Amino acid sequence: MLKKPFKIGIAGLGNVGRGVVKIIQKNGALIAARAGRPVEIVAVSARDAKVDRGVGLTAYRWENDPLALAAAGDIDLVVELIGGSDGVAYELCRRSLQAGKHFVTANKAMIAHHGMALAGLAEAGGVALKFEAAVAGGIPIIKTLREGLSANRLTRVSGILNGTCNFILTQMEATGQGFDEILAEAQRLGYAEADPSFDVDGVDTAHKLAILSGVAFGTALDFNAVAIEGIRNITAVDIKYAGEFGYRIKLLGTAVLSEQGLEQRVAPCLVDLKSAIASVGGAFNAVAVEGDFVDRIVIEGRGAGEGPTASAVVADIIDIVRGGVSSVFSMPVGKMVSAHPISNLEHFGAFYVRLRVQDEPGVMAEITDLLRQQEISIESLIQRGQGPGGGIFVVLTTHETKEAGLRHALKKMENLNCMLDKPAAIRIEKL
Amino acid sequence: MLKKPFKIGIAGLGNVGRGVVKIIQKNGALIAARAGRPVEIVAVSARDAKVDRGVGLTAYRWENDPLALAAAGDIDLVVELIGGSDGVAYELCRRSLQAGKHFVTANKAMIAHHGMALAGLAEAGGVALKFEAAVAGGIPIIKTLREGLSANRLTRVSGILNGTCNFILTQMEATGQGFDEILAEAQRLGYAEADPSFDVDGVDTAHKLAILSGVAFGTALDFNAVAIEGIRNITAVDIKYAGEFGYRIKLLGTAVLSEQGLEQRVAPCLVDLKSAIASVGGAFNAVAVEGDFVDRIVIEGRGAGEGPTASAVVADIIDIVRGGVSSVFSMPVGKMVSAHPISNLEHFGAFYVRLRVQDEPGVMAEITDLLRQQEISIESLIQRGQGPGGGIFVVLTTHETKEAGLRHALKKMENLNCMLDKPAAIRIEKL
Repeated sequence: MLKKPFKIGIAGLGNVGRGVVKIIQKNGALIAARAGRPVEIVAVSARDAKVDRGVGLTAYRWENDPLALAAAGDIDLVVELIGGSDGVAYELCRRSLQAGKHFVTANKAMIAHHGMALAGLAEAGGVALKFEAAVAGGIPIIKTLREGLSANRLTRVSGILNGTCNFILTQMEATGQGFDEILAEAQRLGYAEADPSFDVDGVDTAHKLAILSGVAFGTALDFNAVAIEGIRNITAVDIKYAGEFGYRIKLLGTAVLSEQGLEQRVAPCLVDLKSAIASVGGAFNAVAVEGDFVDRIVIEGRGAGEGPTASAVVADIIDIVRGGVSSVFSMPVGKMVSAHPISNLEHFGAFYVRLRVQDEPGVMAEITDLLRQQEISIESLIQRGQGPGGGIFVVLTTHETKEAGLRHALKKMENLNCMLDKPAAIRIEKL
Repeated sequence: MLKKPFKIGIAGLGNVGRGVVKIIQKNGALIAARAGRPVEIVAVSARDAKVDRGVGLTAYRWENDPLALAAAGDIDLVVELIGGSDGVAYELCRRSLQAGKHFVTANKAMIAHHGMALAGLAEAGGVALKFEAAVAGGIPIIKTLREGLSANRLTRVSGILNGTCNFILTQMEATGQGFDEILAEAQRLGYAEADPSFDVDGVDTAHKLAILSGVAFGTALDFNAVAIEGIRNITAVDIKYAGEFGYRIKLLGTAVLSEQGLEQRVAPCLVDLKSAIASVGGAFNAVAVEGDFVDRIVIEGRGAGEGPTASAVVADIIDIVRGGVSSVFSMPVGKMVSAHPISNLEHFGAFYVRLRVQDEPGVMAEITDLLRQQEISIESLIQRGQGPGGGIFVVLTTHETKEAGLRHALKKMENLNCMLDKPAAIRIEKL
């Protein structure tokens, strides 16, 4: 018995769009067996019809205007791979959902900013809105949070969510070179954009984290509450000393739900060299999730790229064809309530502190006295060698402490005469 | 608008059964929000009604006969946590599915042996049969293979699937003690059964592997084709030398699908110390999956225990309540065809070889000559010290070679006059 094909239109034919076409062309029979119906590309849309994209597109209707896909009578589902939080992607999503079409996207910025409103539209219309590809590429983390761990009260999601930053940090450690040199190399290799700020300043990770929080905790998405710090200030010195203390520096997105509220932060962190997360190098991503019954699981895989991201897009399509349209996040959008945002200053944890000071008597006493005033106790301390431009490095790790106190102590240290650079502090994350 | 509760009956109230009751009692409101309907336990069944299980059961109807759950008119779904491939568990499954009830189980032996027939019953009746808890406890690996990676032609699934063996191997490395001593300790701590053979001889891992193969590849389940080797022959010496070569020994279940057919094997393997799998210690499980677009993902988590396993059971229930009953494995059971089983002897890979020989002239020449005859080239070789009972150890790793040739060479070595123990070979697995 032949089942009617499930018909899709694809807007955007960059890397990921091309990957989706390739998967459907190559694995079509397998997908039909798994989904129960063939998945058929009916129409595609991109800026330039003339570019050779290395895949055959002649069998598909070409639409110059992506919005035509939302209006097309012969399309069951629209795939959006244009990007951008607003503009045509957003318009296409709204119109598609309103026209009763399912919608699959890899657009993290759009979901982070408008996910709740769009989910409302989808749920009202009884259609699916899915975005597995928006977070961590080939890793099925949205499905794992939404379905695989659905029995649990989840309390924490933390991970390496940006391959560009992870590549840069991995290369900085491997070569001993500084951020700027490695960024330039990453740009040359195509691992970083010409304008890298979305990646290296943590905004991309924050988009993904806001989405993960909503799915994991059932709290209203709140991108604006994410405290964001990128990796521009990480130095080769920090990477070296972190290693001496038994840690590696990773840019983590971390969301923690407690009775006090929801803490969401993106920042470089020191993670134990022996942890699973520490061993995740290069362009890979990894996410750790904690819940009340499952304890902890960690998933690792490729966080970007044509194949892995397209794999996530097509898995979403197959899910929809298999049937069972249910809530967009882990519960109906109407049940998702705002969580009280918890500031970084309320964070309680251990820290790495790097100071460059003049090599003179009394310096150590001044530093340790400021820490003592905030009741911060030192776990380990290394004082060694000449820093660049003279002076010596005093690098230490603290026991767990309130972040506000540490920031206060650092502020005071900044004013010490002996202090040659602005003091740097990096959180130590238990993973 | 209040939705009618979804009613379940639970057969078996050991650790996992108790865990399921606890989750539904503790997270009931959250589960209702996620599932869209409350999940209500209506009846339970176990051998002894009088045991104090540490959870309140008085609100539920007690059935002395678990088969009564299949017949009960007020139950939508039966959870089976009795165990055993045949007997009452199997009868309960058949009857429940035939009575139009959904069925959720943690029973790997039953699914490995009868999964295809039971899936046929479920699909014919339009009900769900789910078994996430049967493999790797809290790790949602069935869902990941069936749904998360459904766009891919999967080629390989490999993992640490038995926490008892992983605990024993981890402890052997940590303490330098032998298998028997650590097994006794594991039994004392409750990490190993009084009769440990299902675990340490690899049968439990093989059950799980046969299930993973079927879900990953869409091939007919074929437990009998799994080549099974346990960990009883692993010695402290092997663990030590493996470490010197940069490897760690893990019991892996590995299934590889190629154009030649399906290779399924359970055996101790050497894995690179720097790999994600190598860092998975103690009672944890981890699974690596490879597909044509996603490349590779690795998931790690608790592979057993009350909370994690019950988390998987309840996630299956929530999936069913959310709707969308589709095929039991990754495609309808009627489309799953038998794969040609590939014997271990056709395996192509690198090996670790441990020999204990008399310390006399010409020994090394005899050994290396036998390897040369089979065109096996040596990657590294260590010859050192006195072995127990005299003699010296010659331990080596080979380059990639056909397993049949290596086995042939080992057979000939066994007959050398200088050979004091039966030669041991362990596969080196690239992960």
